[in-house]
Amino acid sequence: MAVKEARERYLVKPGSHVHLDQIDSGEKTLFEDESKGSCEPLFEAMQSELQHLQKLLYAQNKHRVLVVIQAMDTGGKDGCIKHVFSRIDPQGIRVQAFKKPSENELAHDFLWRIHQQVPKNGELVIFNRSHYEDIIAVRVKNLFPDEVWKRRKRHVIEFERMLAEEGTTIVKLFLHISKDEQKERLESRLANPAKYWKFNPDDLADRARWGEFMRAYEDVLEQTSTEFAPWYVIPADRKWYRNLCVAQIMCDTLKSLNMDFPKVDWDPTQIEVKD
Amino acid sequence: MAVKEARERYLVKPGSHVHLDQIDSGEKTLFEDESKGSCEPLFEAMQSELQHLQKLLYAQNKHRVLVVIQAMDTGGKDGCIKHVFSRIDPQGIRVQAFKKPSENELAHDFLWRIHQQVPKNGELVIFNRSHYEDIIAVRVKNLFPDEVWKRRKRHVIEFERMLAEEGTTIVKLFLHISKDEQKERLESRLANPAKYWKFNPDDLADRARWGEFMRAYEDVLEQTSTEFAPWYVIPADRKWYRNLCVAQIMCDTLKSLNMDFPKVDWDPTQIEVKD
Repeated sequence: MAVKEARERYLVKPGSHVHLDQIDSGEKTLFEDESKGSCEPLFEAMQSELQHLQKLLYAQNKHRVLVVIQAMDTGGKDGCIKHVFSRIDPQGIRVQAFKKPSENELAHDFLWRIHQQVPKNGELVIFNRSHYEDIIAVRVKNLFPDEVWKRRKRHVIEFERMLAEEGTTIVKLFLHISKDEQKERLESRLANPAKYWKFNPDDLADRARWGEFMRAYEDVLEQTSTEFAPWYVIPADRKWYRNLCVAQIMCDTLKSLNMDFPKVDWDPTQIEVKD
Repeated sequence: MAVKEARERYLVKPGSHVHLDQIDSGEKTLFEDESKGSCEPLFEAMQSELQHLQKLLYAQNKHRVLVVIQAMDTGGKDGCIKHVFSRIDPQGIRVQAFKKPSENELAHDFLWRIHQQVPKNGELVIFNRSHYEDIIAVRVKNLFPDEVWKRRKRHVIEFERMLAEEGTTIVKLFLHISKDEQKERLESRLANPAKYWKFNPDDLADRARWGEFMRAYEDVLEQTSTEFAPWYVIPADRKWYRNLCVAQIMCDTLKSLNMDFPKVDWDPTQIEVKD
């Protein structure tokens, strides 16, 4: 099986056009010979590699890694985080969920609460939703005048440029599901009492504006995918395929940092541990 | 095999005396028939249970859980966190390491930086070191006059009482290793370039004050183990045994919260997901 590069296949090339309805959310071309059942060993190998790379990241205490995850409701943000990242030492990873802003957060610029949560040296931070809600949801729900979310695209690009130039590696993932797939997932939540808590009747209002959300996402993907903070559009109707793609992108991104265990400034042979 | 209760066996009963040199750090009485090799299935079952309990904690979004881990250097804080908690969904767990306080942190009361990191509803937070360093290390290293760390014991008790009465479940773990075991672990770090980064030559200065540290820990364990924030002394020379005990204490503590998936205030049968 030839494992091609998810990083190459699903990158939104800076300056390119994005038509989400022309991107098949159910495709599985990168792992064509796999299926939900047979991909387990491959996925576990990726998890082990990711575990090792995170250990290096933590030990070296030099790079910072920020993963931004966006999707429509039921798109798989929670599931992706749980499956791809749950074998990692919890000490080096932090998940930050951004919900509806509080009164105090709204009393600041939109990047204020975001900036406080960016990774420090050696840390891998995952944003479950992010500053992109302040462009996309704000636009679709008409929460502020158009000029606000329009100018925010530049703010976001320049903010991410600063983070990257100061030493942060940024990966942005859009988990792309179809409207039909969302229907199935919402209905499965409604059919299972152990999943009721994940359902919010308000989600249906967002679903009714599916087309507007897709247009807002297309604009954001086109205009904010940069060399230093690239977007990837991940086909996410098949959860196992989504997980494989995200794990591969994470492994390849971390490998590209060429990390190693840090050198020390003392001589191990000269140190004696007394009784 | 009769699995007895680690919670009962290793609890520091409020008001009792603690003599660390009389507590065998190498004992394994709770899982007597087990060994490093044979305990794997038992440990995995506990990890699965912990994973399930954390899911309930997160879904219910009602309880807050704080785990405080203290130990001498090489005592196994990092390893314990990694092994016991790394199968848990990273979205519901947060590890907070407290290092040497910054200038700004020292310009506040000692609980200021601690309070900012306590868990919120649905969250499991692990403190890797804690406010107890501000009593123990401060005492042994003579960083402040005696009356400072002496009165801090009351501050800590009252702070933890407040957290508990406001809805936080607190578990405090002292990972107890022998001085000989520490020697072996330090030497193994010095023998492995991939572990150099975990060694700090300053650790040897703390080791030279082992007896003073033990006395400081004994006082803290005796005086700050309460009904609402109990200390457990975990025999930790055997890593597998330490992990089993901690996993069991965590499972039993979370089970005692009698959690369930939350009820919802809408009728699932009345909701239709439109195309």
